[in-house]
Amino acid sequence: MRKVGFIGLGLMGGPMAANVARAGYPLTVYNRTTNKTEPLKALGASVAPSPKEVAKNSETIITMLSDAAAVKTVLEGDNGLLAGAEAGTVLIDMSTVAPDQSQAVGAMLAEHDIKMLDAPVGGSTGPAKEGALSIVVGGEEAVFEAHKELLGVMGKDVFYLGPQGSGATMKMAFNLIVASQMISLAEAMLLAIKGGIDARVAGEILAGRNFSSGLIRRKVENIVNADYAPAFPLKHMQKDLGLMVRTGDRSGVALPATSATHQIFTAARTRGHADEDFSAVFSLLAEMAGLE
Amino acid sequence: MRKVGFIGLGLMGGPMAANVARAGYPLTVYNRTTNKTEPLKALGASVAPSPKEVAKNSETIITMLSDAAAVKTVLEGDNGLLAGAEAGTVLIDMSTVAPDQSQAVGAMLAEHDIKMLDAPVGGSTGPAKEGALSIVVGGEEAVFEAHKELLGVMGKDVFYLGPQGSGATMKMAFNLIVASQMISLAEAMLLAIKGGIDARVAGEILAGRNFSSGLIRRKVENIVNADYAPAFPLKHMQKDLGLMVRTGDRSGVALPATSATHQIFTAARTRGHADEDFSAVFSLLAEMAGLE
Amino acid sequence: MRKVGFIGLGLMGGPMAANVARAGYPLTVYNRTTNKTEPLKALGASVAPSPKEVAKNSETIITMLSDAAAVKTVLEGDNGLLAGAEAGTVLIDMSTVAPDQSQAVGAMLAEHDIKMLDAPVGGSTGPAKEGALSIVVGGEEAVFEAHKELLGVMGKDVFYLGPQGSGATMKMAFNLIVASQMISLAEAMLLAIKGGIDARVAGEILAGRNFSSGLIRRKVENIVNADYAPAFPLKHMQKDLGLMVRTGDRSGVALPATSATHQIFTAARTRGHADEDFSAVFSLLAEMAGLE
Amino acid sequence: MRKVGFIGLGLMGGPMAANVARAGYPLTVYNRTTNKTEPLKALGASVAPSPKEVAKNSETIITMLSDAAAVKTVLEGDNGLLAGAEAGTVLIDMSTVAPDQSQAVGAMLAEHDIKMLDAPVGGSTGPAKEGALSIVVGGEEAVFEAHKELLGVMGKDVFYLGPQGSGATMKMAFNLIVASQMISLAEAMLLAIKGGIDARVAGEILAGRNFSSGLIRRKVENIVNADYAPAFPLKHMQKDLGLMVRTGDRSGVALPATSATHQIFTAARTRGHADEDFSAVFSLLAEMAGLE
Repeated sequence: MRKVGFIGLGLMGGPMAANVARAGYPLTVYNRTTNKTEPLKALGASVAPSPKEVAKNSETIITMLSDAAAVKTVLEGDNGLLAGAEAGTVLIDMSTVAPDQSQAVGAMLAEHDIKMLDAPVGGSTGPAKEGALSIVVGGEEAVFEAHKELLGVMGKDVFYLGPQGSGATMKMAFNLIVASQMISLAEAMLLAIKGGIDARVAGEILAGRNFSSGLIRRKVENIVNADYAPAFPLKHMQKDLGLMVRTGDRSGVALPATSATHQIFTAARTRGHADEDFSAVFSLLAEMAGLE
Repeated sequence: MRKVGFIGLGLMGGPMAANVARAGYPLTVYNRTTNKTEPLKALGASVAPSPKEVAKNSETIITMLSDAAAVKTVLEGDNGLLAGAEAGTVLIDMSTVAPDQSQAVGAMLAEHDIKMLDAPVGGSTGPAKEGALSIVVGGEEAVFEAHKELLGVMGKDVFYLGPQGSGATMKMAFNLIVASQMISLAEAMLLAIKGGIDARVAGEILAGRNFSSGLIRRKVENIVNADYAPAFPLKHMQKDLGLMVRTGDRSGVALPATSATHQIFTAARTRGHADEDFSAVFSLLAEMAGLE
Repeated sequence: MRKVGFIGLGLMGGPMAANVARAGYPLTVYNRTTNKTEPLKALGASVAPSPKEVAKNSETIITMLSDAAAVKTVLEGDNGLLAGAEAGTVLIDMSTVAPDQSQAVGAMLAEHDIKMLDAPVGGSTGPAKEGALSIVVGGEEAVFEAHKELLGVMGKDVFYLGPQGSGATMKMAFNLIVASQMISLAEAMLLAIKGGIDARVAGEILAGRNFSSGLIRRKVENIVNADYAPAFPLKHMQKDLGLMVRTGDRSGVALPATSATHQIFTAARTRGHADEDFSAVFSLLAEMAGLE
Repeated sequence: MRKVGFIGLGLMGGPMAANVARAGYPLTVYNRTTNKTEPLKALGASVAPSPKEVAKNSETIITMLSDAAAVKTVLEGDNGLLAGAEAGTVLIDMSTVAPDQSQAVGAMLAEHDIKMLDAPVGGSTGPAKEGALSIVVGGEEAVFEAHKELLGVMGKDVFYLGPQGSGATMKMAFNLIVASQMISLAEAMLLAIKGGIDARVAGEILAGRNFSSGLIRRKVENIVNADYAPAFPLKHMQKDLGLMVRTGDRSGVALPATSATHQIFTAARTRGHADEDFSAVFSLLAEMAGLE
């Protein structure tokens, strides 16, 4: 079994790393705030004081960070991953970043003879705990094959998609549909509610149609109960929408619906919903409709 | 069993009326172009030469027409429904119209002591044939109860929602989500395709996620096979999006994502996709992305 | 001089009718609420108790009403204009309505051998008082020529554009640019303000560029002084945006920027800015940006 | 007179540098493609082989480049500006970049004790030649005062706005209004044209209203003559719209109208209008309206 490093033990990274530890991989972890490392220590992982020290102890390093800037910070500097990694090390970045950002990291790593997979995930905290994420992977196919089993302890469905950056691209497609479904559910519920229909009744009917999905069924509950405990924080979805718009801009794809959605999430983040679940975008639209 | 009239035997109305006939209701039908009445005649229905004659022979009349103007045309004039209907007749309008349009018809009927249910349907030609539509109903509850069985021969799920206009409102909510899901699928597929991912691979992965739906699974097939044979013509979805925007305008609900979607469907209708399936909105967006 | 009738003495219609009276035309006026007729009586106008009575006393009747429904109400019924107008009468509708709505009125009038000009105006209360409006006219050219002088007492620039409905179309184009300029000024000011630039400084600089206009210079003042006394009420601009979207829908013109603007004005109307000047759309966007 | 360097001699930078030379400043220039340096040589400027050599010969260096990546490229590396600049040098970046990008450059320069002004310009090639640009400046006020005269040879209106980054912010506000005015003019013209009004007639009327501007008057000519020779290339406006959206995202300002405009410019760039004038966005919208 390859020696694995894991950097970034947040809401998603924590349970993902725990699954790696439970699967028996020799594991070294690092997190900027050290209290997050406690549960991993309890599972037998070593805790390193820096990304550099993680790199020294690992053949494959997984990063699960908030954005491309955070990935860059982990790589660079005297205590950075690049200062400790030998040629031949493999980096699997599972963070959600734009394809061009992922490829820029890949190019930087290539100068140090470090291979890279971009392997972002679909699914929120629940599937992360159960090892039931969807993982979409870009990079060299041989490198993917060598890590398929490792990825399999975190995800139920693992897809190889092509050259480095392909995973990041596919993740954009995932979250585009998720964000759009959320905002269309919110707009539909508001038409119903302001048309005099009870929210719970409307939600139950919508949740049972052939256009419904697991996601819609869960988010109807959030709206009806006004319960926005974060499964996936709104500020993260807002960030991801910015990445989609950036990706469409670079690749020449006009995204009229997604960009409208992006702006509403920006307003929702600004007006106090940043740390709530992304379904709290309903609150912003309800407010604009004179309801809250 | 009540004597039933059915006006409007198009792609949806035809099979719906056939289900009414098969259930044994004494049925009189009318359609502007008479060749559409043949299959109903074969099922034992009487064919009337005008809405007025339908009204004379019916206790309950169902209309399934293209828009509010068509409903008005059927009601008014020397050969119109109102010229033949007695007080106490019930009209069930199953057309997709805006709530305020439905209520205006209801008010006009009330002057003639005719009761009205608005009962638009969810589902396209397949469920119409199988009697498996979703039907959302507004109007007096007693009138609804008296027609529940009749509605049940056309629809699997029949929901009573409240005062007249409530059904029309709920139908707006249905199609809002359907149109939005379609355009988000198109935008997501284009990000993937222009990012170098094979369309079929992308489609299969998207169709298997927890945000997928029966609708998405079907529409992925349309896109991947570039097959836009109409289950629901794009021009009808474009019309419905206009009704949603109108409804949001009147009830004070801002619909930023839906209105962006509306404009893209307008462009798609204008650029030759009017009579294709509404999933052909993908073609318009692909063209804007330089792909077609 | 032709005997003139004037129906609709609101913020715009009042001063317009006054200019007609001052020019010496024999004038009969009607307004739903009668107190608005006092200033006209003082200028020598006769006050009629109904549109029907206006019609009986007029060769040419001007309407300046809030929307197409109000125009229809004035025409129809026992006391309506059509009940009193002889064949050969001319109606000049100066209300802002959609082209298809204007043409529908024209068709209704044609059945009574009444000619129609659609002649909506550009400019708000100031130019209305000064007889300095812009007037855009559709209808038969001979009818236009016969009324050019009359229109000239209300407007400085009077343009003949073609068949009936052309004036309404051009008015859509006017207000589209006005609404868009307002929302872009608001978005630009907010970028500046949240970027740390003083609102007054930003406003003065913007007002002095080659992309500035008389409109922008005035609306900068409204924003900087947070003074939204209505020159043109926001609810009317919101209504007009709905008419533009309707017109684009019917004529097959996608209006992506205008429809986004429409939705923001809907939110602004809903959140208490309906009766303020339309520049109060800044307040709504500022609120969404966390500033108010 | 301070010794001045100028890097970036494109459509805008070329004439701006020429004005600096004509004003008598000792000038050293650099451009990636050397043929652009010929006109400057003819005006007495020295041509340097690299940004480093420019820096060695200059007390103040002006950059006028296509984007933030180009600025970074000029600064970094063995032949970069930073390799040749002494502490105390001043950099005036007149490129259009986002405020956060400008501030990142400022921070990088501060580590080398180099002061920075961000001083982007309003106006296209005409005003660049005439020294009649608008210049909006951020940075330390003393540094601004020391360079006011130099900026004055390029611009008629020079505004000091506050800390470094303020100029970049104000430039976002400028181009937001310009792009928005362009797309609203296009949408308005299309409503008129598809409503049966002659394009030239519509354009002349719009150009004469109180909402018109120097910009609108010029762009009406482009549309009416279908002449899209680039005064400001569409791809640059598309890029700038991306920067506005990025800036709104970071500072928490929802930009619903601007983001809709951004997407249309992306489609226009993708569909072959990249190097035409940005008024060619009309062609894209006309195509979507079935006209081209």
